[in-house]
Parts: sequence; structure tokens; C-alpha cells
Amino acid sequence: MARQPKPLVRSDIAYSLPDRIVVRGKDLPNEVLGHINLGDFAFLQLTGNAATPEQSTVFNAILITLVEHGMTPSAIVARMTYAGAPESLQAAVAAGLCGLGSVFVGSMEGACRMLSEALPYGTKHEDLKQLARDTVAVWRARGASIPGIGHPLHKPVDPRTPRLFDIAAQNGLSGDYVKLMQLIGAEAERVSGKSLPVNATGAIGAICCEFGFPWRIVRGFGVMARAIGLVGHLAEEAERPMAIELWQRVEDEASAHLRGEA
Amino acid sequence: MARQPKPLVRSDIAYSLPDRIVVRGKDLPNEVLGHINLGDFAFLQLTGNAATPEQSTVFNAILITLVEHGMTPSAIVARMTYAGAPESLQAAVAAGLCGLGSVFVGSMEGACRMLSEALPYGTKHEDLKQLARDTVAVWRARGASIPGIGHPLHKPVDPRTPRLFDIAAQNGLSGDYVKLMQLIGAEAERVSGKSLPVNATGAIGAICCEFGFPWRIVRGFGVMARAIGLVGHLAEEAERPMAIELWQRVEDEASAHLRGEA
Amino acid sequence: MARQPKPLVRSDIAYSLPDRIVVRGKDLPNEVLGHINLGDFAFLQLTGNAATPEQSTVFNAILITLVEHGMTPSAIVARMTYAGAPESLQAAVAAGLCGLGSVFVGSMEGACRMLSEALPYGTKHEDLKQLARDTVAVWRARGASIPGIGHPLHKPVDPRTPRLFDIAAQNGLSGDYVKLMQLIGAEAERVSGKSLPVNATGAIGAICCEFGFPWRIVRGFGVMARAIGLVGHLAEEAERPMAIELWQRVEDEASAHLRGEA
Amino acid sequence: MARQPKPLVRSDIAYSLPDRIVVRGKDLPNEVLGHINLGDFAFLQLTGNAATPEQSTVFNAILITLVEHGMTPSAIVARMTYAGAPESLQAAVAAGLCGLGSVFVGSMEGACRMLSEALPYGTKHEDLKQLARDTVAVWRARGASIPGIGHPLHKPVDPRTPRLFDIAAQNGLSGDYVKLMQLIGAEAERVSGKSLPVNATGAIGAICCEFGFPWRIVRGFGVMARAIGLVGHLAEEAERPMAIELWQRVEDEASAHLRGEA
Repeated sequence: MARQPKPLVRSDIAYSLPDRIVVRGKDLPNEVLGHINLGDFAFLQLTGNAATPEQSTVFNAILITLVEHGMTPSAIVARMTYAGAPESLQAAVAAGLCGLGSVFVGSMEGACRMLSEALPYGTKHEDLKQLARDTVAVWRARGASIPGIGHPLHKPVDPRTPRLFDIAAQNGLSGDYVKLMQLIGAEAERVSGKSLPVNATGAIGAICCEFGFPWRIVRGFGVMARAIGLVGHLAEEAERPMAIELWQRVEDEASAHLRGEA
Repeated sequence: MARQPKPLVRSDIAYSLPDRIVVRGKDLPNEVLGHINLGDFAFLQLTGNAATPEQSTVFNAILITLVEHGMTPSAIVARMTYAGAPESLQAAVAAGLCGLGSVFVGSMEGACRMLSEALPYGTKHEDLKQLARDTVAVWRARGASIPGIGHPLHKPVDPRTPRLFDIAAQNGLSGDYVKLMQLIGAEAERVSGKSLPVNATGAIGAICCEFGFPWRIVRGFGVMARAIGLVGHLAEEAERPMAIELWQRVEDEASAHLRGEA
Repeated sequence: MARQPKPLVRSDIAYSLPDRIVVRGKDLPNEVLGHINLGDFAFLQLTGNAATPEQSTVFNAILITLVEHGMTPSAIVARMTYAGAPESLQAAVAAGLCGLGSVFVGSMEGACRMLSEALPYGTKHEDLKQLARDTVAVWRARGASIPGIGHPLHKPVDPRTPRLFDIAAQNGLSGDYVKLMQLIGAEAERVSGKSLPVNATGAIGAICCEFGFPWRIVRGFGVMARAIGLVGHLAEEAERPMAIELWQRVEDEASAHLRGEA
Repeated sequence: MARQPKPLVRSDIAYSLPDRIVVRGKDLPNEVLGHINLGDFAFLQLTGNAATPEQSTVFNAILITLVEHGMTPSAIVARMTYAGAPESLQAAVAAGLCGLGSVFVGSMEGACRMLSEALPYGTKHEDLKQLARDTVAVWRARGASIPGIGHPLHKPVDPRTPRLFDIAAQNGLSGDYVKLMQLIGAEAERVSGKSLPVNATGAIGAICCEFGFPWRIVRGFGVMARAIGLVGHLAEEAERPMAIELWQRVEDEASAHLRGEA
């Protein structure tokens, strides 16, 4: 019997010939450039499918929500890295992305995972309210905080949430996952007695479930969107730097007690 | 006279209040989400201005061109990093971005720099042909290769170039910089006797000059676009991995002579 | 009553004055340089204490074990990144480190965590054999593979393990944690019927427990050691490159089916 | 005539067999572990040669000098990244390394390059004083600042410099490159009228020339040493965090004017 050949290394994303560049089955120069926007191309790159107009509107809105969150640790990291290696702008963006882990973008991924594990893709549940109660009970029993609800600043309502849910509803992408996320938020408020509105990452996690995205890739939406935001911060840092000033303040303060000054 | 206060750390990009999130002067939930696409939001984030419809078409086309270039070192790096740390998708994207330096995205930045130094923003030159001749002569005298021309695979024409130049022309963003880039390509072909078509990075570098972007930020367009492409590669790697197979092949081959096998 | 001042940002690691540089309480030029080796300085930097001669021998051996593991994904990543951005050697090292996550260095951290949770620092257990049985039972019940045992290549013995355990024993750093790790390996072999020798990461995890290191920092030993290894790979890549050749092979193979060649 | 086979991918650093692990020709468990220190192993990994006792002393001193420089941007970056992704310690170290570019470690590389280009390895120059004058003149003519001299804090003497030069001299590694570096510092002081002592990076750059290291790899010494330092900062951050406090201060201050507060 013949020996199995080694599995071939294979990718279905793109290929090039001298006169052709094809991405996800589309001729890049002729069928893509000038015809679609960046968000739609991201959708094509990720799913292999062209976005419908409704998917386009909702997916662009999700990504845009994730681009810029102010002077986050990620932005400060990118700026400080740029101060040391201005010739390597790509490394400054990379450094800024490295911290998009469990604490910051994790809750978006976590919400998508929680919802798609509670209600697996392709299934129905006859009582979403009960499912929300059960889900909250499980998380509370574990002592874990429920992803996608509550916000330190945006109280009592995260202003992005109703807008994202509206856009999803207007475009036919609001179903059981959005409902379940809202029910989980309400149930968590009920049992904890705290204000725990569904936040932007909860809304996005739920809408990602409406799209049917696997939860493992959802963090990637935050990563690619934030790359855009970080380039914006570096453009500003190049014009009006703050990194060196911040460094000197921290350095002075952190070792003052060792230098006998505090 | 009073001592100058320390300069305040200051950013004009965004701010949040409990019920408001404002980016570049726009109310994010109400004025942005559902109204514009990701490429336009990148334009807003970077320039502080809303893109006109013409700018939108051209800027989206530039970014899309940069998203996906096949199984590049950058894509292989992201996939191999993901194989070791699947829980840190953001670090896999970051690793993939780190190599977008002088060799790969440098020529886009280089073309923009060459053109905007030859013809500074806001100035005119009466004889672009002469300027092209002078520019080529200077680069050749330095023994440096001219950025933005020639391609190892896409010969005799890079299929992205005429399409990008068409889109720019149709949207009023084709002027002296596009002309100068084309003249430099022609002059380089003339003096070298080689086929040196303006490639996609040359076209993008020239169009970036038409926008008036400072060359220092142009690399950032490649970085942010590629972040999208890399997430696509990671989504595929998660489904159908190749990194471990590649690693084992390299490992076997690289040390065969030490193990006495070759 | 006075408002609490904001907590000061504070680090105890180092400080500088015009004529003095002090790290962990030692005058760097006069008390450190020329007096101790790099491994001992790492110990000082991490723990705040000077290593005893015994700690020095064992800690240096641990770190050295982690420097170089052949043509790993991490090494390939660093080389491929360097090929794209040779002007940013630091970014190539950084990219290579990004993949030192749960799959590759995780088992060292995992072993340290497993052991220090089974037998918390400062406690004793009267029957280590029973503790090993219980620990193996718990991991098997979870369906998780036990960290620090088994190796795809080094069978039936990982040649680093007995040597590391010998060095630890000769230097008074072999106690209940080393015993427990060995008992866990033996028990896992017994119940699974497979050859599951304690591997190098298991040995290091156990010895880290003998030192009393918190498990959260143990991954860092692998990270800092591998940084050294990666610089070695980049020095070789600069002399005799392989990254471009590897890239072209992967590119050719991965899209052959799309180009109609396979 | 037969077609040339594709060049084999090949590395001379290490190989493994089931019962053997060999790095740079040494049996790792038996000839290395317990016998040498981490700095010597770094020397072996990088050069392929065992360090002599003199090389060991000097090389360890160089690396130790580069481990810890206080609360640098690099340390702040690592801490802020860890705050967002504590599960990815490796990514926090990676982020911290990304900024070790032209501004911070560049001067060490720059000094080594300047000296080894002025006096190529294997050559002699009959008048080092003249060579120093010429070198300073060339750099001043370019308007570039000379690498390795001057320090914002350590005046009039960088306390590491005389100590590093002493250690080098005691170990037979002080020759024309150390002399040339000192002469360049003196000449730069003479022509500029400023205090420009040879700083630690200048001393290290000169000593790297005494070793005969290619300048392209010298940045790597800073990178691998700093990886150790950053793990120390992360160990401290895990115990007594400052990143979140720093973030909130920056965020508050940077957008105060947009929120109408300043």
C-alpha cells in the first residue's frame, strides 16, 4: 500500500499570476478596487463571501466602534514605542496591539463565546429568559464576572449599545443572540442589584453571534480595527509628542523614594 | 516672570463622557456608526477630516490593495506565532506586523518620500520630465534602487497600477505626483534598459502625495491594512493549520547535516 | 479629614543619580560589573536578592536550558521578520517571542503551577505518593494533559531532566517538589500505560518551585532566555539567510491549487 | 549538465536526537549545564566559540550593563501591555523590546559602526588622534550627533564608562577601538566646547569592536539583556501594579481640553 503523501500546505485566500491578483475568488484590480469599501473587503477576506448591503452596514459599524477608544494603554504603548524607534512605525503598532488581551478586548470575545455556547449556532431555545437566568447563575457560581455588561464610565447606558442594536435590527441582524444578551444584562442587574447595562463589547459579541462568527476570531475584529486607531495616534505623536514627557514624569516619580526625595 | 508650566499631555483625537463618545469631533454612535464605512473612518481618524466621496473611493482602494498579498513572510509569521500562543491572537497579528519594514512596505513610503522631496507639497515644477531625469540620476549615483518601480512577478505591467491610477484620475486625485512617478518609471527603464513598470507601491506612494500625506505616516496604511489581512490568515490557520507542518519541515532540513543525515 | 492622596507610582528596582546607578540596592558599576555573571544578575533583578553560589549554579542551568531549542517556530518567525525589517532587529526578536505561549513554554509554567497548587509554598504533605495519585486523577478527570511530562522526540528519557535534577540535588535545591514531579510522571505512566518521562519543562517547573518562584513569573524565564537564542539565530540569518527561500517555497505550495497547478 | 538543486535551508546552531541535544557542538546536558554561566552561553550561541575567562568577564559585564535602565519607555510599555494581557507575559516583553530602536539602543550600534568603519577590523591606523579628528569632522559636517558620547544625567562622567574600560583593560580587551572612542569624545568636547563624556553605549560599542563583533548584531546585546530587565519589571508589576494608575492619569489629562475641563 502506498505511503500517504505529506499533507500539502494550502491556503485558499489568494494567488497571483503575472497579470492577475485574485483574493477570495475576486480579481482584485477589476472586481474589488473602486467597487467596495475596506470594511466589506475585511468581510470578504475573513469569510470568503461578499457582504450583502445589510451585512456591510452592520459589519462596518462593528469595526468602526473598535477603532478608537481614547488614550488607552494600547495607544500609550504605541506612542512610547514610536519615541524609541520612529523608523519602525510597524513595531509601534505591533507593540500597541500586544496588550489587546483578556482584560480589554477579551469581553467581546467572552460575550460571543458565552452566547454561542449557551445557544449553539443552528439551534433554538424555547425560553430565552430561562436560558439567561441559567447562564447568569452559572457565571455567578464560578465567581466570574459576566462578559459584555457594565461599564465604569458609561452609566446608566453605554451610548454605543442602543445604536449598534438599532443598526443590527434595521438590517435584519438582530435575533435570539441580541435578545439573550439583553436578557442576561437584565438578569444580572436583577440578581446583583447593580447597574449593569449591556456595553459595547456585549453588543458586538451578540451581533457577532447573529453573523455566526466563531468566537475564536472575534478578538481579531478588535485587533484589526485598533491597528487603524493606533496609526492615528502615531500620526499625532509624530506632530505633537507626549511620550518623552510621560516617561520623564513616571521615571521621576517611581524612583523618588530610592533617591531619597520622597 | 512666572515659570512656564510643564507642557500638558494632550491629544485631539477623542474623548468620552458618561453619555457621549466623540472621535475627531463627531458623535460616534449618532454621527458615525451606520453612516460611514471603515475606510472613511480611518481617513477621519488620521486626518481629522471627513472624506469627500472622491477621497473615500480612492482611499478605500489604496487600503484594500494593501490588505492581502498572499502567503507573505508576514502571514507565515502570524500563523507560526498563533500555533504557539493561540490564546493570544493579538500577539500573532503583532508578530506578523513587525516585519513590515524597509524591505516590504518600505517602497511605498520610499516612493512617497522621493516624490514629495522632489516636488515639495504646495510647489510646482515647470518641467516634470527634467525633474524625473534628475531624480533618477540622483538615485543611480547613490547606487540605490528607486522605490516603487519594477516587480519580480508582475511583468510587464503590475495589474494594480493602471487600475489605481484610473480610480485616482476619475476622482480628481491624479496630478503632478502621479505624472512624476510615471515619468520616473519611464526614465529608469530608458537608462537601465530593463522593464521597470510602476508597481502598486509606487502607484500608492504617488497617490498618497496627491492627498498630501506626510511620507512618515504612509507606512502606517500598509500596517493597518495588513492587520486585516493577517486576521484572515489566522482564521484560516485555526480551521486548517499549516504552521506545525512547516516548522517540522524546516527543523528537519536545517539540521540534517548536523545529525549526519546530509 | 484629609482626602487620601493618589497612590504614588513606585518601583523598587533601580535609580540613577549623576554619579551613581543603583540596581536592587547594588552600585552597578562598582558592586556588580566584573563581579557577577548575567544569570546571577537576572536573579538579582527578579528577586532583589544576590544568588548564593548554589542558587547561581542552578539558576544559570535553568536559563541556559531555555536559550536554544533548534529551528523552532519562534526562530523561524524571528528570521522571517528580520528579512522584512533588517533595520529593526529588536522587532524580529519581539516577533519571535510573541509565540512563547500556552503551547510551547506553557508547560513549564503549568508544571510550576500544578506543583505549587498541589503543595502550596510553606506547607508539607505527609504522603507525596498519594498527592501525586490525586493530582494525576484530577487532571485526567478534566481530560487535560499533565504539564511537564512526555516528549515527542526525547524518549524514553529527556536527557536534560536527570542532569537538571542532579545539579539541583548537588546544590541543595531538590526537595518535595522534585519528588512530587517525579511521582506524578511515574503515576501518569502507570495509569496511561505510555512512556511519559518528566521532560525539561517539568524538571524546570519543579526546580522553580524549590526556589519558591511564583508560577506567574516562570514563563518569563523562558522568554528572557529565548531572547538570547533568537539573537543567535538572527546573527546566523544575517550571514546565511534562509527566510526568503522558505517564504518562496510556502508561497508556491500554498496557492498551487488556486493557480491551477495542483 | 544537471540542474543545480535548490539551496538547502541550513543552520549550524543546534540539533537534537532522542538521547542528545547539541548546541554549537557542545552536548548541552553534559558539557554545558552546570559548567558555564548564562553570559558565556550567550557568547557561545552567538559566536560558536567558548568564551575565554577574560572574554567571559568582559562580555558578562557588557550584558549586565544593558539589563536595567530604570523606568524607561520600554519598561512602561511592558507594564501597560501586561495590564491588558496578563495571560501573555511573552507579549508584554515583546512589546517592551519593540522600542529599542534608533533612539535608545541605536547609539551602541552606532558607536560600534562608526569605530569599525573608521578602522576596519584587521587593519591598523598610524595616527588615531588624526583619525578621531577626521571622524568628528565628518559627523559634524553631516550635522549628525556622534554616537556614544554625552549623557543628559550622568555628567561630567558616566560612572559606567571608566569601570567598563577598566574591566576591558584588565582582561586584555582594550586596544585601538577603546582609544579611538576616547579620542573621539575628547575631540568632540574640544570642537564643541560642551561636556561630552564617552557614555556607557560608547564604551560598549568600543569594546564590541575589540571583540570584533559585526556592528549589525550589537543592537542584539541590548535586546537580549533588556528582555531580562523587563521580566523583572513585570514581576514587580504583578505584585504592585502602576499601569492602570498611569493610564487613567494620561487619559484624564490628554482629553481634558476636549471635555471642556481645561
